[in-house]
Amino acid sequence: MEFLVRAENRLPVDTPAERREELRAAERARAMELRAEGILKRLWRVPGRNATIGLYEAPDAAALHDALSSLAMFPWLDVQVEALAQHPQEKA
Amino acid sequence: MEFLVRAENRLPVDTPAERREELRAAERARAMELRAEGILKRLWRVPGRNATIGLYEAPDAAALHDALSSLAMFPWLDVQVEALAQHPQEKA
Amino acid sequence: MEFLVRAENRLPVDTPAERREELRAAERARAMELRAEGILKRLWRVPGRNATIGLYEAPDAAALHDALSSLAMFPWLDVQVEALAQHPQEKA
Amino acid sequence: MEFLVRAENRLPVDTPAERREELRAAERARAMELRAEGILKRLWRVPGRNATIGLYEAPDAAALHDALSSLAMFPWLDVQVEALAQHPQEKA
Amino acid sequence: MEFLVRAENRLPVDTPAERREELRAAERARAMELRAEGILKRLWRVPGRNATIGLYEAPDAAALHDALSSLAMFPWLDVQVEALAQHPQEKA
Amino acid sequence: MEFLVRAENRLPVDTPAERREELRAAERARAMELRAEGILKRLWRVPGRNATIGLYEAPDAAALHDALSSLAMFPWLDVQVEALAQHPQEKA
Amino acid sequence: MEFLVRAENRLPVDTPAERREELRAAERARAMELRAEGILKRLWRVPGRNATIGLYEAPDAAALHDALSSLAMFPWLDVQVEALAQHPQEKA
Amino acid sequence: MEFLVRAENRLPVDTPAERREELRAAERARAMELRAEGILKRLWRVPGRNATIGLYEAPDAAALHDALSSLAMFPWLDVQVEALAQHPQEKA
Amino acid sequence: MEFLVRAENRLPVDTPAERREELRAAERARAMELRAEGILKRLWRVPGRNATIGLYEAPDAAALHDALSSLAMFPWLDVQVEALAQHPQEKA
Amino acid sequence: MEFLVRAENRLPVDTPAERREELRAAERARAMELRAEGILKRLWRVPGRNATIGLYEAPDAAALHDALSSLAMFPWLDVQVEALAQHPQEKA
Repeated sequence: MEFLVRAENRLPVDTPAERREELRAAERARAMELRAEGILKRLWRVPGRNATIGLYEAPDAAALHDALSSLAMFPWLDVQVEALAQHPQEKA
Repeated sequence: MEFLVRAENRLPVDTPAERREELRAAERARAMELRAEGILKRLWRVPGRNATIGLYEAPDAAALHDALSSLAMFPWLDVQVEALAQHPQEKA
Repeated sequence: MEFLVRAENRLPVDTPAERREELRAAERARAMELRAEGILKRLWRVPGRNATIGLYEAPDAAALHDALSSLAMFPWLDVQVEALAQHPQEKA
Repeated sequence: MEFLVRAENRLPVDTPAERREELRAAERARAMELRAEGILKRLWRVPGRNATIGLYEAPDAAALHDALSSLAMFPWLDVQVEALAQHPQEKA
Repeated sequence: MEFLVRAENRLPVDTPAERREELRAAERARAMELRAEGILKRLWRVPGRNATIGLYEAPDAAALHDALSSLAMFPWLDVQVEALAQHPQEKA
Repeated sequence: MEFLVRAENRLPVDTPAERREELRAAERARAMELRAEGILKRLWRVPGRNATIGLYEAPDAAALHDALSSLAMFPWLDVQVEALAQHPQEKA
Repeated sequence: MEFLVRAENRLPVDTPAERREELRAAERARAMELRAEGILKRLWRVPGRNATIGLYEAPDAAALHDALSSLAMFPWLDVQVEALAQHPQEKA
Repeated sequence: MEFLVRAENRLPVDTPAERREELRAAERARAMELRAEGILKRLWRVPGRNATIGLYEAPDAAALHDALSSLAMFPWLDVQVEALAQHPQEKA
Repeated sequence: MEFLVRAENRLPVDTPAERREELRAAERARAMELRAEGILKRLWRVPGRNATIGLYEAPDAAALHDALSSLAMFPWLDVQVEALAQHPQEKA
Repeated sequence: MEFLVRAENRLPVDTPAERREELRAAERARAMELRAEGILKRLWRVPGRNATIGLYEAPDAAALHDALSSLAMFPWLDVQVEALAQHPQEKA
């Protein structure tokens, strides 16, 4: 099942550059793993914001939560999840 | 997977009583089937409104959509679906 | 450039079945053309609603508007467009 | 009487791990007591958020408030309560 | 248990005066019964609107719904119910 | 004239217990005076929140503001005031 | 006591010109009376809308409601009232 | 002074094509006049909607209202006006 | 041209009393000057809040901005400006 | 392609004057470069706020994001982007 995931990153502006970079690297590494596992399918930036929109696939909402909460930035993310239903046009 | 489903019924006030009763009976009958199939697990009334909150279980959002759109009142329902994740406290 | 497009279909409930089917068929046919042209890339149903979320690609917002307004249901659609920026993770 | 309770947990991100774990354990222990008393009937996670949706049963809103405010995390919870009415379908 | 009930009256402007008066009289009569039964405790007008705020008392949300839906204007009311908890200052 | 007053208490969670108790006692004492003066007529707790809904009576909005701003917690209250009009049903 | 009154006029677009003009004339005439009585103190147009913002003075919210509901357009007005408190700078 | 003007066109879907075309032509003609007078400076389409965003210049809000209400579609427009202040960067 | 200006004062609660008094005095002094210049025409308190609603007159939005930003409290004000158009009823 | 960009500046009030001035100068310098490159076409102040509305032109949303995130104040900006479509009236 697919989910649309909007995530605003609220990491404080005054986070030291080194800590920020460390978090970004860990975030990127974990995201790459989620892509490899087929959980994170697409990711976009919301222009002008420290925010993303992602297309995820997971067996259910609990598995999705596990994936999202495994991200290094998760404690600072304000996440909104929307369940998506397969459209008949895309069947077969 | 469970879903929380809020449904406002917008059936026009001036719908003839006979048609309204027919729809209500069909709605109730189909809801009972969904209960029997384990898809509709709980249903509450929003006090003061022609609206319900329901707890549904379905394999995914598409199956949920099929269940909801099989209801006789569906064309008049304004539905909001929220995906629910199993809470660790409820495991096992 | 990609766009996220949310479309609520407000076609009146009392539209005659024949007219409704005619519109749906024309909508589907045009959507298929937009897919073939690479403009409509993905389409999901919002569960419980007569609504879709689509991923479109178009040179700019005017071209996107032309694509959307070419749909048979367009006069009844309440559409919200969100511009998406390529995420650095997806480069190359 | 049943209530739908949405609770966002605003515990600051920089809460020391030990303090956080202590609060979580106390929260879980108290929640288990509320379950045993039949006050907390179901609990879900809102996917992607440090938030829950719970189904509670209490004689009235004051008793519900007493239950919620007995939770260890209560000072950091942003809670929205919605009164639920028994649906005629569920009678008998 | 007490409830705060906000009710917007959406009776169409073009309702014939006779029908409107009939509904108003029936509404008033039923409201008086609800007062006599101790269910409707206070009623205010929202200034400038065809709307009221009421203080109700009922054993639970289902009983409140029964009271509200017994009003002659109910089919045209847009109602929002808020559960109220007794404040410690008012105990004893 | 009566007013409906919704007050969210934003006193920081980390306020020392002694200071908090001092403020609560002063708040309660002043509220009791406002009750004695007939200004504060009813007070409810919003279940699950550090918030109240109050029914006040004051000659005008300025007198109401004076009453509210005399409360010990006032600097931390987020207050919404709604003017209430006497309903014809309650006349005489 | 003063009130800020926002009024959106929802008179249907297809109201016959004669009826519309009759209502406008009656509205204007009654507004002039309310000005003469010192109830309507200022009136502005919200640019681009069939809407006004008015400054009213009335003994209380019930008197304000009586004034507003005496306007010819009242059945089509969507009105929001905000109670205003005298500012200390304007005393004396 | 400049204004940002958002206008949603609510002309009913079932307006006869001839009437619609007549209104569009009149709208376009009047808009061209407003451009020539320097009142309408820029106009954009909101992609996916029958809506526009315009940049207008007028001596004040009343003059702006006169310009907007001179448009043929005005009775069906839902307009939001935002006052813009010259930015210091654009001075001289 | 007139403007309706809503200003919420977000000065932190823990601002030292002396600093707060200093700011209030400077605010009052500047407001008095703006009154003398005919820019600030009326000022109300929003009951229950550290907020005001003001009626301003200025040649344009930039001049209004200059007036508002000259207030001592400006760095802490959350301001919403609404452009007002003269109503035909008020024309000489 | 053009974009409407609303940016609220959340730079903390207690930022030292020197740091603030440094940021403002850098912001202005970069904005001037963006103007020279034809990316920033117009900029307005939202009256009463530390906020701007800008008209930008960029090949796509990613290029726009690069331009916005190159501004010195970017870490403190709360930005909302709206894609604009060319209006037929403005063609050729």
